[in-house]
Order: sequence, then structure tokens, then C-alpha cells
Amino acid sequence: MQGPVTVTAYDWVPELAQGFVRDLRLRWALEEAGFAYEARLIPHSKRESAENLARQPFGQVPVLGVADRSMFESGACVWRIAEASDDLLPSAPAERDACFSWVFAALDTLSPAIDRLAFLRHFADDREAAERIEAQAAGLLRAKLAHLAAALGERPVLVGDRFTVADLLMAFVLRNVEANGDLAPFPALGAYVRRHTSRPAFARALEAQMAPFRENAARYAAAD
Amino acid sequence: MQGPVTVTAYDWVPELAQGFVRDLRLRWALEEAGFAYEARLIPHSKRESAENLARQPFGQVPVLGVADRSMFESGACVWRIAEASDDLLPSAPAERDACFSWVFAALDTLSPAIDRLAFLRHFADDREAAERIEAQAAGLLRAKLAHLAAALGERPVLVGDRFTVADLLMAFVLRNVEANGDLAPFPALGAYVRRHTSRPAFARALEAQMAPFRENAARYAAAD
Ligand SMILES: N[C@@H](CCC(=O)N[C@@H](CS)C(=O)NCC(=O)O)C(=O)O
Ligand SMILES: N[C@@H](CCC(=O)N[C@@H](CS)C(=O)NCC(=O)O)C(=O)O
Repeated sequence: MQGPVTVTAYDWVPELAQGFVRDLRLRWALEEAGFAYEARLIPHSKRESAENLARQPFGQVPVLGVADRSMFESGACVWRIAEASDDLLPSAPAERDACFSWVFAALDTLSPAIDRLAFLRHFADDREAAERIEAQAAGLLRAKLAHLAAALGERPVLVGDRFTVADLLMAFVLRNVEANGDLAPFPALGAYVRRHTSRPAFARALEAQMAPFRENAARYAAAD
Repeated sequence: MQGPVTVTAYDWVPELAQGFVRDLRLRWALEEAGFAYEARLIPHSKRESAENLARQPFGQVPVLGVADRSMFESGACVWRIAEASDDLLPSAPAERDACFSWVFAALDTLSPAIDRLAFLRHFADDREAAERIEAQAAGLLRAKLAHLAAALGERPVLVGDRFTVADLLMAFVLRNVEANGDLAPFPALGAYVRRHTSRPAFARALEAQMAPFRENAARYAAAD
């Protein structure tokens, strides 16, 4: 990357969200690629500030800054990081195209099915109604996972023979599913997620997201 | 594009889905760019055939073929078409980046909120439970739409001063919302969708999707 790299992130979030905020996707990609970056921490309460809205129209994180340019949407940012590195993309054009397709499969095929189920399980206010719909949503997710498992087979990666940006995003979106035990019917997918999230670059990225949460915990507790 | 272009699509779908199958995204982009293509029609019942699964691991359409290479995921395909043309992307790198971010915003921020509501309204089997959750899901979508409306303001396009791939995908994902009347609180968004979907290239793409449905309607009705 040409010029200093920054990533916006929150200075603290509630425990349930810690380790899952999406700046982690960018941090992970940057660590894999060996690009130094600086985190720009903002309070969650300032996410709708004019400054953040100018960079991220939905008042969210992350934003990727490279020199004087900035991008939003973690998928777009992660792809740009991958394109600037030799570590996250194969060199053959057909394999690069395949990675591009799988990036969208992670975000536009798996992720919506995962989010729908998570909404019913955790966020829907009418708990009793949500529970009645949960099984149907779980079935729809399972159908997507079955296709993914069939496509992956026994291979350790989605494209070619080494870890790429496609695995980074796919493993990231499946992390929650794995943590919940919902990958149990698909042991190869469980192994896939555990293999990739045990990469040293992921551990460094996770620690970088978590450190400020620890440092700011007392301050936020006091403000409560 | 170098070499013959193909798009997979269904030879017939039920009326509710007609005009909304995602090969329309590719057809629209190809029409805007002036690239000739051939549709490869498959019966919906053959979507899980080995041949289709080899191209589209989730057993869906569309797939984009260019010479001997193929890609899946409509977002990935549309971006590739845009990159190969001067008509769907600005030339300035910062504006191209902005288009890339907005493509992901359409697919990874708006679309999941739209799909969640559509699931509750139309697909959830337990109608009574779904209706109890609908208002919350509608509120979550409205919050995203409010941010989008604020970012767009009175401008006719998301990036720069002419129609780009960002508008193509954003208008596409908002079409249903507009048709349902859910854009009523955001008149500028309603106008945005109507303006872009009244482009001649969209009309040609829509007619190309619909023509085989009309031709095959009798055959499918007879098989019922
Ligand atoms: N599609 C966006 C989603 C970004 C997103 O969901 N950000 C969350 C954190 S993971 C956020 O900032 N939420 C703040 C809020 O809406 O409360 C992306 O991938 O960048
Ligand atoms: N994320 C995929 C989704 C593709 C998709 O949903 N395709 C639908 C038609 S719009 C399909 O083939 N559905 C067949 C089925 O699952 O019954 C993309 O955008 O390409």
C-alpha cells in the first residue's frame, strides 16, 4: 500500500461484540499482508458524528484509510488490501476471479442466512414469535452450509492450494456459526474455520482489537 | 470483454419471481456496457445438476461465462463487467474506490435488511409469528434507508456525476422496496430507483429475461 494505512474501530464495545467487530477483518488482512497500520479509535457513541458519517455513510466501522483516500464496507476494504499484496491472492487470473466470486459468496450468500438466524435468536424483541421461526431459518442456513461443504470437500482452502482472501472472509463469517455449534453437521467446515482462525496473523489482529477494550473497560464501567 | 459472453438463467420461474431473477443484474450491466451475450437457459429443476453446481456451488443462477472462464455471484460478475467497460465506472481511482464501496453497501448493508423483511413477509411459514416481528425488521431497514437517503441527498447518482455500477446494484436491490411502497418516507430514494430503472438498457435486459418465460409458460402449465 502506498502511504500510511489507518483503520477506524471502536474504543470499546459490550463483551458480546468484542472480538467480532468488523475492523477485525481489515486488521487480519493487513497482518497477513504484512502492512503496518494505525487504528483510529472512536467511541461507539460518536459513530453518527459528521466526521464518521463523511467516511462511513451508515455511521459504522470500519473505514480503511490509505494515504489521503478512504473506503468503507469491510468487504471492499479487505479486497483492496488483498489486491495490494502477494499473500492473499493467487497470481493466475482464473484463480483471482474464483477468489472474487467466493468473497461475494461469503458476504452475499452465507452472511445473510447467518444474520437472519442471529437476528431471530438474539435481537428480535418478541422472543416467543422469534423462536417459532428459528427452525425454518436454521434450515435455510443449513442448506447453504451443505452446498459450501460439498464445494470445499476435503480441501483446506477454497481456491488453489493456499490460504487466500476468500478463506479469510469465509472463515470470518463462519466463526460465529462454529462458536454456536451450528457447524456440527459439517465437520470439515468446523475444521476449516478452526484451521484458519488459528493463523498467527488472526491472533495478532484479534489482540489488537481487544487491547483497547481492556484498557477502556474501567472508564466505560465508571460512566455506566 | 475478450471472447464470447454467456449468462446462465432459468427458462421459466413462477410469476412472483419474474423480472427479479438475478441474471437480470448481469444482463443490465452488459446492456449498459454494450457487450453482446448469449443466455444459457436451464430449467429451475436442473439447478442442482452436476453441470450447474460445477459453475455455481450453491445451485443457483446467474453464472457469467467469458471465453473459457466463468464466475458466479451476481455482485462479482457485475463488477467484472463494469471493469471491462468505460460506461459503468468513472476513470478517477478515488471514484472507482467509492463505487466499489457502494457495491458492497448495496449487497452487504441494504440487501440483508431487505431480505430479512421479505423473509418475514413472504416466506416464513409461521405467518402469525412472522407478523409479530415484521415491524421491528421494517424499522431496521428504515434506519439503513435513512442513512442512504442522507448520503444521496438530492444527487441523482451515488458517485461522481453519472450513472455507475454502484447505482445499477443499489437501484436493483431497492426495486422491490420501491414496488412495495416502503420507500414512501424517502421520496428521493423512490425517484432514484424509478430514474435508473427507466434506463433503456434496463428495459432491454428485463425484456430479455421475460421473453423465455412467456415462450415457456404453456409448456410449464401443461406439466403442472
Ligand atoms: N456491511 C458493513 C457493516 C459494518 C457493520 O456492521 N459495522 C458494525 C460493527 S461490526 C457497526 O459499526 N455497528 C454500529 C451500529 O450500527 O451500532 C461492513 O461490512 O463494513
Ligand atoms: N448471492 C447470489 C444469490 C443468487 C440467487 O439467489 N439466485 C436465485 C435466483 S435470484 C436462485 O437461483 N435461486 C434458486 C433457488 O435457490 O431456488 C448472487 O447474487 O448471485
